[in-house]
This record gives sequence, C-alpha cells and structure tokens, in this order.
Amino acid sequence: MDIEELQKKVIEFRDARDWGQYHNPKDLALSLSLEASELLEIFQWKDAQEVEGIKSDSEGRKRVKEELGDILIYAPNMCHEFGFDPSEVILEKLDINEKKYPVEKTKGSAKKCTQS
Amino acid sequence: MDIEELQKKVIEFRDARDWGQYHNPKDLALSLSLEASELLEIFQWKDAQEVEGIKSDSEGRKRVKEELGDILIYAPNMCHEFGFDPSEVILEKLDINEKKYPVEKTKGSAKKCTQS
Amino acid sequence: MDIEELQKKVIEFRDARDWGQYHNPKDLALSLSLEASELLEIFQWKDAQEVEGIKSDSEGRKRVKEELGDILIYAPNMCHEFGFDPSEVILEKLDINEKKYPVEKTKGSAKKCTQS
Amino acid sequence: MDIEELQKKVIEFRDARDWGQYHNPKDLALSLSLEASELLEIFQWKDAQEVEGIKSDSEGRKRVKEELGDILIYAPNMCHEFGFDPSEVILEKLDINEKKYPVEKTKGSAKKCTQS
Repeated sequence: MDIEELQKKVIEFRDARDWGQYHNPKDLALSLSLEASELLEIFQWKDAQEVEGIKSDSEGRKRVKEELGDILIYAPNMCHEFGFDPSEVILEKLDINEKKYPVEKTKGSAKKCTQS
Repeated sequence: MDIEELQKKVIEFRDARDWGQYHNPKDLALSLSLEASELLEIFQWKDAQEVEGIKSDSEGRKRVKEELGDILIYAPNMCHEFGFDPSEVILEKLDINEKKYPVEKTKGSAKKCTQS
Repeated sequence: MDIEELQKKVIEFRDARDWGQYHNPKDLALSLSLEASELLEIFQWKDAQEVEGIKSDSEGRKRVKEELGDILIYAPNMCHEFGFDPSEVILEKLDINEKKYPVEKTKGSAKKCTQS
Repeated sequence: MDIEELQKKVIEFRDARDWGQYHNPKDLALSLSLEASELLEIFQWKDAQEVEGIKSDSEGRKRVKEELGDILIYAPNMCHEFGFDPSEVILEKLDINEKKYPVEKTKGSAKKCTQS
C-alpha cells in the first residue's frame, strides 16, 4: 500500500480525536523512543535461541506486531509535523547510507552494520 | 510510494552487504531504540519555543529527517524478520487503536493521546 | 549511606534469587534503558507547567521514586559486572566533565548542559 | 563513599555552571534515557561471547565506565529535583521488590528477573 496514503490514515485518526494539539516534535520523538522500548522489552533477558523462538510464537508475534505498529504510526506523524514525505525520508537515507557504507567496503562486516 | 516496494529496497540494501546475518529481532529492536534516542537527542534541553523553531531550521530539519530515515529503515527490516507486511502492521494497529480509543471518549483528551 | 554498602545490598538481593546467571552487560544495559523509559513515560505529553506539577503530586512522586529506584538498582549491578566501584565511577566522570566543561566556558549555557 | 556526599558533589558541579535553570524533571528523565542508550550502544550487534569480551577490553571498559558515570550523575540530579535522598530511593525500592519477588517464588527464574 502507498505509504503516503497510510500516512493520511494516521493523520485522519489523529485529527478525529483532536490530538494534533498535543503533537509536538519533542513529545513525538519521546513517544517513538517509548514505543521502541516496549518493542525491546519483549527481548529482555532472552538469549539468542529464545529470541529466535519468538518468531514462531503466536503471542510473541502479536506483541511485536503491535509495537511495530506503534512505531510505524508515530513515525509518519513525526514526518507530518515537518512536512516530510515518508517515501522521501526513506529513499534519501538509503542514498546517504549507500555513500557512507559502500558495498565493497562493508560487505559482511558487523562493524559497519550500524546504519546511523 | 508503495511501502512494500520501499521495504524491498531496504532489504536489498541489507542483502548487498550481507548484513542479514547480524539482523536478529533483539538487535533490531535495540537499534530502533538507539535511533529513536538519536532523534530525541535533537530536542534535549529545548523548551517548547525552541522545539517549534527546529521545524524551520534547515540544519535541525536535516537531522530530524536522517534520524526518522533510520527508524523508517529499521522498522521494515524488523517486519521482514517476522514476515510482516508493513501496511498490514499499520492498518491492524490503527484498527486496535480505533477500538481502544473511540472518538467519542477520547476527543481532545491529552490523557488518551498515547497510542499504545 | 555508603554507596558501596548499598551496592552490596543490591547484589545480595540478586544472589538470594540466583539472578546473577541472567545478568550480562547487554541485558543490564538494556534493562537500564527500559527503566529510564518508564521514568520518561511519566512526563509524556506533559507541558512545562504539568511537569513542574508532578513535583508536588503524591502519586507522581511515588512513580518517579520507584523508577529512579530501578535505575539506581540496575546501575550498581552493572558496575558489579565490571568490578567498578560506584563512587569511583561517579568521581572519575565528574573529573572528565570538569575538563570537558570548564566553568568559565560553560556557565549558564544550555548548549553545554549535556554532560556526555 | 557516602551517596549523599556524592550527590552533593554532583549538585555543586551543576551549580558552578548555573545549569540548574535547565534541569527540569522531563529533560533529566530524557537525558537519563539518552545516556542509557549510549551505554546500550556499546553492545549493539554483539553476541553473547563478544559481550563477555568487553569485560576484559580496556577500551570497552572505559566506555562502559563513562556511560555508567553519566547515569550515576543524572540520577542524583533527578533525586535532587524531587528532594529525594538517593539512599532512601534505593532502599525503598529494594523493599518493594522484596515483596514483589519473594525469594521462594522467584529463585532462579528468568521470568521474574525484571525488577520493575
């Protein structure tokens, strides 16, 4: 589905509740951070095998999906706040990363895996 | 642009570097959390007026765009790890939120603004 | 009270439950991050005045105290993992910060407020 | 060393720079979260063996110590903001946890390891 259309739905949800008045960049960034923590919490104290196991655990999958949903709802809200097109945000960052991490220098290297 | 097509580009970027071997749900969630922190850091010690000012500051906008880009790159990577369709993740969570936060009960209330 | 004595109590609590086996630096850092998020959540969507109001709200104070408690319990656990003396950790960082942020250059400047 | 004396040093550092004016509970909690992320970043993409290896790596130990220092500096700053005695914060939370996680029910169980 078109990401800009999804963003439109997200903003409609917000506007139907008059929540735009509370949406400011600082609290949206803070909320993204809190949601990422809730996603991360699912894996707290889990070793590699247990982490892998969550992929085939229906309750775990449900939680992961919901927390990812929160992140994928807040992110376009934040884009909207700055007038950013989500597609453009992704494509421009992939472009920056292409230059920062050229295939020939980073292939198979864990050190360069960090995309930031 | 189609979000599944964007996800495909994100995975192609990853695969070109053989980074799939490092991608496990725990480290991807951890990475999402770190990127959200980098976004949040832009607003550290900023009061409401300064936060608003970042919207029209070219350097601030650039940083916000890049950090949002990292989040919007890691999130589809995480979806991929679980075989989730990003559109579905968003639409299902909007659906859950519709039931959790019915318009008539939450309109204009800051308390219910949290979408989690 | 002596911080090393407090650390001893924290480790005794852990050992009484055989939790040392789960304590590894990555999950302890992850846990510190989750606890910091729970503390932060108390202030989500709150404006400057509401944030100030929490200082005199008994329920808010209780939550802040408990979340700070979690951070102040995990931090000495993490120190223990590396054989660090908590006093030394604090004093050495204050020393580094003294050099990084000399009084004459940073006095009253928000930009330098970040102690990292 | 006495934790209240350490807190006094932390506040003196702050006051020498007139940074108290920027210290509000929301930004302090936000800062604690950012510092916890910087600590966590040290372990990003690291497997269990690599994480263990950091304990005997001098550069890794230095980074961990500094990031723990930041957390152990911000936490008493936050306590100060609410007039909390750091010792009391720790002891009261240990007490709560004693009741929440009785030894006989939680011994050796990873599930109950979360102290929050």
